[in-house]
Amino acid sequence: VNEFDLIAAHLAPLAESPGALGLKDDVAFLQARGDLVLTADAMVEGVHFLPDDPLDTVARKLVRVNLSDLIAKGAAPVGGLLTLSWPRDRPTSDIADFARGLAAERENGFALLGGDTVSTPGPLTLSLTMIGQPLSKRGPILRSGAKAGDLVAVTGVIGDGALGLMARLGRLAAVSREDIAALEHAYRIPDVPIGVEHAVAMHASASLDVSDGLLADAAHLARCSGLRIEIDADAVPLSPAGKRWMATTSDRSDALAQLLAGGDDYQTLFAAPAARIDAMRALAPGVAITVIGHCVPGEGAVARRADGALLAAPTAGWSHF
Amino acid sequence: VNEFDLIAAHLAPLAESPGALGLKDDVAFLQARGDLVLTADAMVEGVHFLPDDPLDTVARKLVRVNLSDLIAKGAAPVGGLLTLSWPRDRPTSDIADFARGLAAERENGFALLGGDTVSTPGPLTLSLTMIGQPLSKRGPILRSGAKAGDLVAVTGVIGDGALGLMARLGRLAAVSREDIAALEHAYRIPDVPIGVEHAVAMHASASLDVSDGLLADAAHLARCSGLRIEIDADAVPLSPAGKRWMATTSDRSDALAQLLAGGDDYQTLFAAPAARIDAMRALAPGVAITVIGHCVPGEGAVARRADGALLAAPTAGWSHF
Repeated sequence: VNEFDLIAAHLAPLAESPGALGLKDDVAFLQARGDLVLTADAMVEGVHFLPDDPLDTVARKLVRVNLSDLIAKGAAPVGGLLTLSWPRDRPTSDIADFARGLAAERENGFALLGGDTVSTPGPLTLSLTMIGQPLSKRGPILRSGAKAGDLVAVTGVIGDGALGLMARLGRLAAVSREDIAALEHAYRIPDVPIGVEHAVAMHASASLDVSDGLLADAAHLARCSGLRIEIDADAVPLSPAGKRWMATTSDRSDALAQLLAGGDDYQTLFAAPAARIDAMRALAPGVAITVIGHCVPGEGAVARRADGALLAAPTAGWSHF
Repeated sequence: VNEFDLIAAHLAPLAESPGALGLKDDVAFLQARGDLVLTADAMVEGVHFLPDDPLDTVARKLVRVNLSDLIAKGAAPVGGLLTLSWPRDRPTSDIADFARGLAAERENGFALLGGDTVSTPGPLTLSLTMIGQPLSKRGPILRSGAKAGDLVAVTGVIGDGALGLMARLGRLAAVSREDIAALEHAYRIPDVPIGVEHAVAMHASASLDVSDGLLADAAHLARCSGLRIEIDADAVPLSPAGKRWMATTSDRSDALAQLLAGGDDYQTLFAAPAARIDAMRALAPGVAITVIGHCVPGEGAVARRADGALLAAPTAGWSHF
């Protein structure tokens, strides 16, 4: 079986948009009617997912980590170009599992436009470039643009990705089997706030996705906007499983710090004037929006407990080096 | 040193276009004025380049294999998104060498728009998505569109990439040191027909880049256009070093077959009406355009020697599986 046959068999059915040219040409074609945003993320076996993670979930995560960037910028997905570096010792028939995961993300706006398939003597290595269209004439919502006085809010829940990885590594002994399963699922197929992109496009003053860790990403937003972000650590929304894990820990501040530094959340963190929050909730009824802090003059991002104590969470975020 | 510092130090200076947002946001921004073409290619250490190839040449090849797709479609480059999976045991300071290679390709229209940098326990793995703008209102020139009666032509010379790889692997003993150096250079930094994109956009009826091997790519064009391509093997343009290598071989047909099946050429292979060839040469004075065959009713692609003998070159092309 050669790569061309494999692509034809498994990926071409995902390339339904006319611009994909059925994956039969060297390029994809996009009739762009206006501004576009572009984002690219790589995922490596053993670094961003585990060797025994089901390949359909790996594909779904790959799409979602890119989708999360588009959503946070207030953009709707147009499609993506995939490069797949396939390990020589992985059965090529597994590409069907991977393709099934991509297909499942079509309901979230994913369309395959093109790409490349090669073999590698190393780990499975994936790269996806996704293209999106900003949903407002303001263009993409950047990290810069927040104003002192803006509230800071986050979608969904924080910490399940980090707890899910700990669960996968067998480090969450005190948690129930059901919670372990829920957290592992959140690690494998992160919840992304599909539906909030319109609200962000219309009302947010600055926005980004939470991938490095809530506090680190708040610090990115603060630096790019030239202000300081103060977060109420106890207001950060946790899942039921996250809350139950928290109850098993001896030091609540230390546990919160782990979740706020964990990363792999793929929720949207944004700043907006207080008067806009209700309008955003009305535009995104299916997405939980929780106000967790506010912007003040100064620099950096800090999280405090209700008693005023600073949370000792690192703000540098995840580094691959 | 963390990844953010590395990116800032080495890649941000390459992100001069406003849409790159200085690599400081999660996305790139493109003010698209019309249609776009998109292409993505991956390159893996040990598969597409050798572990001891200088990293600046690896970067240049990565850009050029994508550029070659855009040129063959009659499009001008706008920029690219790079994902870099960096081996944990490669000094991160080597990123400077890689960035120097990218910088050298700015003169060929490369601009860095965004991307991602991650670490890998495996080989250096690169993925580049490039965006281009078609240079004619006809849009991108596809593999389909050739007509029976069209001539088939190729830019530059064929075979140096394949000979360069053989040279790198020590399998070209009979060739002079100067020729070895020239061929290795062609393998590391492939010559791409920069300047022919306007001529292709205006006049070619079908076009693609020669990456799988001249005969295999001719077969792709023939299949997509629903016709047969007949190539005059002795008309295929060779470099001086290629010709001298040919003179050292005992079977000229066998040697020609190797070059026509070799791949890694990154020249443009196109079909055009005979009356258009002179106009194309006038539009691309810096690029050699050689007529090597013609389109007839039927299917497949064949190459014949002057005596009518069929060349026994495989038409399936390079397969990674």
